[in-house]
Amino acid sequence: MSAGERGSKVALICGGGRFPLVAAEAARRRGIEVFLLGLKGIADPGAESFPHVWLGVGQLGAAFREIEARGIKEVCFIGGLGRPEFADLRPDWGAIKRLPDILRLLRGGDDHALKGVIRLFEGEGLRVIGVETLAPELVAAPGAMNRIAFPKDLEDDLAFGHDCLTALSAFDCGQGLVLSNRRIVALEAAEGTDAMLLRVADLREKGRWRAKPPSGLLIKAPKKGQDLRVDLPAIGPETVASAARAGLVGIAVEAGRVLILDREAVALQAEKAGLFLYGFSRGGTA
Amino acid sequence: MSAGERGSKVALICGGGRFPLVAAEAARRRGIEVFLLGLKGIADPGAESFPHVWLGVGQLGAAFREIEARGIKEVCFIGGLGRPEFADLRPDWGAIKRLPDILRLLRGGDDHALKGVIRLFEGEGLRVIGVETLAPELVAAPGAMNRIAFPKDLEDDLAFGHDCLTALSAFDCGQGLVLSNRRIVALEAAEGTDAMLLRVADLREKGRWRAKPPSGLLIKAPKKGQDLRVDLPAIGPETVASAARAGLVGIAVEAGRVLILDREAVALQAEKAGLFLYGFSRGGTA
Repeated sequence: MSAGERGSKVALICGGGRFPLVAAEAARRRGIEVFLLGLKGIADPGAESFPHVWLGVGQLGAAFREIEARGIKEVCFIGGLGRPEFADLRPDWGAIKRLPDILRLLRGGDDHALKGVIRLFEGEGLRVIGVETLAPELVAAPGAMNRIAFPKDLEDDLAFGHDCLTALSAFDCGQGLVLSNRRIVALEAAEGTDAMLLRVADLREKGRWRAKPPSGLLIKAPKKGQDLRVDLPAIGPETVASAARAGLVGIAVEAGRVLILDREAVALQAEKAGLFLYGFSRGGTA
Repeated sequence: MSAGERGSKVALICGGGRFPLVAAEAARRRGIEVFLLGLKGIADPGAESFPHVWLGVGQLGAAFREIEARGIKEVCFIGGLGRPEFADLRPDWGAIKRLPDILRLLRGGDDHALKGVIRLFEGEGLRVIGVETLAPELVAAPGAMNRIAFPKDLEDDLAFGHDCLTALSAFDCGQGLVLSNRRIVALEAAEGTDAMLLRVADLREKGRWRAKPPSGLLIKAPKKGQDLRVDLPAIGPETVASAARAGLVGIAVEAGRVLILDREAVALQAEKAGLFLYGFSRGGTA
């Protein structure tokens, strides 16, 4: 029996935000038995409405024991984790045994760290699956997701901006940017998409970016070569609200590779704000 | 007679900030005759302590007439210009005649626009020179510029970060970033260096970036292939103050290719704040 089938059992390692609960609910609707490992101080308390246990980020040994005790063979990481510093981890014995691996994975960018986490779980004989396997309705659809078409004349900006994100992938950063007429207005790093969009709004208010609104395209895509089983980029209602506030013309996300919490509601919200929501696919990246 | 020699005459097209006045003063000290064309509403009123004229950004025809009337053959662009939108330009006849060129150069990134401006001036038979020719003491020196040495263990971050800036050059953005242990914390686009550094300070305050201060390296370099005669990246007292506030460990700038307003004072200010100020040179970029 494999993930995504009725009756399969999956452990969800739950980071912050509403995604873990929405994914758990969606999986349960499909007949998958879910067990939630909520990260203390990070995961939403709503995890308690599912079979669950609370664990600290460093309690790797306990996590493996809880998963094994339930005969679960498949694990899905979901929700934001931030990036723990070693001092915050409070490692248990299971983590201390694996210390050299953990220290190695704390060096380098997010993607490097997450690949390391996957390897640790695989090393315990577990299969790590992506959230799109559990809940396909949570990823971006291809093409227009609302009734506002993607404007033809933005195709060049979309290609230019996506190429820029791809170039940044080699440096393990760059999941989002805002551009207009081939001018990159903002690049996302550790601050996240919403903070980047507020910066764009601020640049406009202060007259530092004077292109007349609505203009400016937000592009979100996973890093090239990113393991899609962890930490897909995500958009939600805040992204749309911030994009509207920044006076953008629309949002383009890579189809099948960006999470959207409640896709229909977000698409409709964007439409009401006059923004297109477009799922793009480009050769070599799908 | 060529620029940089006693008795030569140079027209300085003055954008905002203190750089134009400092460069004009430095050039005058070296016996160069300067004539300032202050951009209305942008250049510092201190331009009036030199032979000068005030012009709007769009008064290209008037600029060429003023320069020609004084028998000046060399022009130097200095100071921030922001990025004018066409509606702000209020073009004169001289600009309107060149409208197709101007419209072309308003499309694309900053570097593209500035190369276009250089071509317009060269088309009038003028030679466009870099500020380092007028005032070599205004660019970053190679090596340590204060008594704090560049730490050996940051060489990897410096190379990684500079490679990232170089990759961004192809997209006409990326004159600065902050990183630590190969993690890119912030990337500079339209907001400028100081705003980027305030963002880093904010990420730290909010616990979104938890590496213990002092840590984090600011790297500034011109874009690869950038025409060094216009718009070199610059640092000044605000950069140092913001870097200190962001808890960084130091500042690395490309030697000979980054402007520093009052280099000695800035280096000393950095030293007092516990920050190194290092002029790096890397193969293929000097």
